[in-house]
Amino acid sequence: MDRVISYIEREKSRSINELTELLRIPSISSQTEHKKDMEKCADLVVNYLKSAGFEDVRIVPTKGHSIVYAQWLGAGKDAPTVLVYGHYDVQPVDPLDLWHSPPFEPVIKDGKIWARGCADDKGQLFCHIKSLEAHFKTNGKFPVNVKIVFEGEEEALESHLDEFIQNNSELLACDYTIISDTEWFADGLPTICYGLRGISFVEVTLTGPNRDLHSGSFGGAVDNPLNVLCKMVAQLKDNNGRITIPGFYDDVIDISQKEKDEFKKLPFDEKHYCKDLGIKSVNGEKGFTTLERIWIRPTLDLNGIVGGYTGEGAKTIIPSKASAKLSMRLVPNQNPEDISKNFEKYFRSLAPETVSVDVKLAPGGNPVITPLDSKAVKAAVSALKSAFGKEVVYMREGGSIPVADMFSSVLNAETVFMGFGLPTDNIHSPNENYSLENFYNGIKASAYFFDFISKV
Amino acid sequence: MDRVISYIEREKSRSINELTELLRIPSISSQTEHKKDMEKCADLVVNYLKSAGFEDVRIVPTKGHSIVYAQWLGAGKDAPTVLVYGHYDVQPVDPLDLWHSPPFEPVIKDGKIWARGCADDKGQLFCHIKSLEAHFKTNGKFPVNVKIVFEGEEEALESHLDEFIQNNSELLACDYTIISDTEWFADGLPTICYGLRGISFVEVTLTGPNRDLHSGSFGGAVDNPLNVLCKMVAQLKDNNGRITIPGFYDDVIDISQKEKDEFKKLPFDEKHYCKDLGIKSVNGEKGFTTLERIWIRPTLDLNGIVGGYTGEGAKTIIPSKASAKLSMRLVPNQNPEDISKNFEKYFRSLAPETVSVDVKLAPGGNPVITPLDSKAVKAAVSALKSAFGKEVVYMREGGSIPVADMFSSVLNAETVFMGFGLPTDNIHSPNENYSLENFYNGIKASAYFFDFISKV
Repeated sequence: MDRVISYIEREKSRSINELTELLRIPSISSQTEHKKDMEKCADLVVNYLKSAGFEDVRIVPTKGHSIVYAQWLGAGKDAPTVLVYGHYDVQPVDPLDLWHSPPFEPVIKDGKIWARGCADDKGQLFCHIKSLEAHFKTNGKFPVNVKIVFEGEEEALESHLDEFIQNNSELLACDYTIISDTEWFADGLPTICYGLRGISFVEVTLTGPNRDLHSGSFGGAVDNPLNVLCKMVAQLKDNNGRITIPGFYDDVIDISQKEKDEFKKLPFDEKHYCKDLGIKSVNGEKGFTTLERIWIRPTLDLNGIVGGYTGEGAKTIIPSKASAKLSMRLVPNQNPEDISKNFEKYFRSLAPETVSVDVKLAPGGNPVITPLDSKAVKAAVSALKSAFGKEVVYMREGGSIPVADMFSSVLNAETVFMGFGLPTDNIHSPNENYSLENFYNGIKASAYFFDFISKV
Repeated sequence: MDRVISYIEREKSRSINELTELLRIPSISSQTEHKKDMEKCADLVVNYLKSAGFEDVRIVPTKGHSIVYAQWLGAGKDAPTVLVYGHYDVQPVDPLDLWHSPPFEPVIKDGKIWARGCADDKGQLFCHIKSLEAHFKTNGKFPVNVKIVFEGEEEALESHLDEFIQNNSELLACDYTIISDTEWFADGLPTICYGLRGISFVEVTLTGPNRDLHSGSFGGAVDNPLNVLCKMVAQLKDNNGRITIPGFYDDVIDISQKEKDEFKKLPFDEKHYCKDLGIKSVNGEKGFTTLERIWIRPTLDLNGIVGGYTGEGAKTIIPSKASAKLSMRLVPNQNPEDISKNFEKYFRSLAPETVSVDVKLAPGGNPVITPLDSKAVKAAVSALKSAFGKEVVYMREGGSIPVADMFSSVLNAETVFMGFGLPTDNIHSPNENYSLENFYNGIKASAYFFDFISKV
């Protein structure tokens, strides 16, 4: 392993240069105008995988964006097989005017690289490419059989990865899956994430009058879809911050006091948290702490609303339409499909007859828990300790990685989340950034992981 | 008068051609990119006024868009003076994709002219220009002294007309003001409008976290400004459709049962009204009819909301900001300034400490009532009868013409609303149109009005 680590040290500047090239490509999967960029990005990932030692690298087309698949089975039938998951697509970039430098022109500053996708998830998946390259260039082989699944639809409204996994369970058969798309609890605290929330995503549109109306000539007599939308949305939570959709909490598992006590040991500073976010106080479901609200309680957030005149100045209309995008974060054992259906039923029941309601349900993701005593988690813990020279802490995450549930249910593989992101990375926001220290040591941690998992 | 009417008949095709030229100019006052178009439009109006017989025509600069002022005092000191008000600016045009033909390329079809501003208000003010031209070309003079005030900020967020009127009360001194910016009750029913609602317009912005946040990593613990905005806005009306701002109804005058009974005589078909709007039913303040809700009751409408991600696909964020534009239509004797201040106070009181609130109050407009037995109203009624050959009906209007109140309070002039618009004109909406019959007969009605008012 010493020679592998030396190789990684030696190739640092090439690694960051190659990552920079990857970050220059605006691979925004949810915007159709970036279709070509998605292809370009997949091609570059393929090239990097080939340089890392993979001969069998494939671009797998889907109805949406392609999956990059690679495999190296040279370790033999008796050796374990590790499947590495990542995504090469990124979030949209608006509001663009809040970025300090253009999102697709990476800048290195203050020990970080700044660009859309640097932390979520190009920078993290690249750690594995570089660690595998280090093994290959040093030893002419990988320590275990490796399969790579890098998707291009993690940030898209519709993903075809589930279909791919379900239809290719033999091709993808593996013992372990490793996912690096999570954050540490804090800078300097290498962290294993052992639970993720699931998600339901919906888009709703109300239509009232068949055209925009003069709010003077019609105001007061004709229901305004914007006022109605606000009223309907306001009813989705009660004054205790609890979601009012019937049956919403039926399948929520209450966690043990022991687990809650562990959360309390983590160095969470609420004052600092609020200060960093620029808010006077936190707010959420009554009876729960901030970490509990994020990690073990479901929630419902508006992600966007639009309706009426939103340009400069005044246009005094009653708009014909009003739309909103909403997501619900889910916890074990809530089922995204059931939750979405219950949402739709309840939301429709809140509508007066003066508006028509359109609801679009996007495929959701299940919440996930990984056992702390699994071999994969243990190998990851050791790898983080070796690479960063620090004790590891355990946390859960409020975000969602829908594929994690597929890996455990379809492939029956032990999953581990070993991420290198930090809470200050601004993922999904302007000025996304990724710590260079975590990038370089992340490559080493990945290298150690493949070594350790080959020996368990 | 026969010769004046003959002149109008003879010049019909030139009149519509000249109006078409005026409609080609995108004089959208609320959008700064149309500053040049506003100037171009004012220049064209000046030319038309000169052709109509005015020698003293002035472009009066303001801090915003210019006022076109003209006067002809050749009727002498003993003759009455009529001030004609109109506005040459127009509403924005979005959503553009709903227009059947481009908004600034006028089309004549089905007995109507189709273009932004054709009814509101270029087509109506043009009736007066053409009627005065007919008088001048026929008799070498107008029947009365005439002052023209055509503003360019009626559809803008900020208007400088009040300032102009207050600072120029001597210049503008007059006996009567005529405003043609209202609609008939129905096609074929020449209508005098004797009451208008006032308006308060506000823009609110909530700021929560100092940046957009990942709704997974923060959802449930950090208040979402969009959810908060919906909840606050939902509280502005109760379940009976009454506005909850403290003191909001204190100054509202209840009208007499007699006036209500008069409303009931008008041929209002609620089924047809709903069908035309594409809604299943009307809805509004409990205990009032549709016409009462529009004409004699105040209301509150959202005119636009924007916040979060509103593009294609999903972006699962908690947005930093959420904004809304709201207008309140007011009735006698509500005061727009008081109402706006009360709104701000109440709205701020609804906000949790997790968001900061910014409220922008735009100058409002007072509600207005014109006595039915005034000389100006009587002359207008006779003029409509003569021009259209039909009995006149009386109605109120839900919209606002803020300047009407200024004319009565500062100039102490009798005001009359003699409009030629129809309820199907789609003003403020895509596919605005103006009846050619009402345009041509509107010119005649204006000509009769100047004749009749000279003889009272």
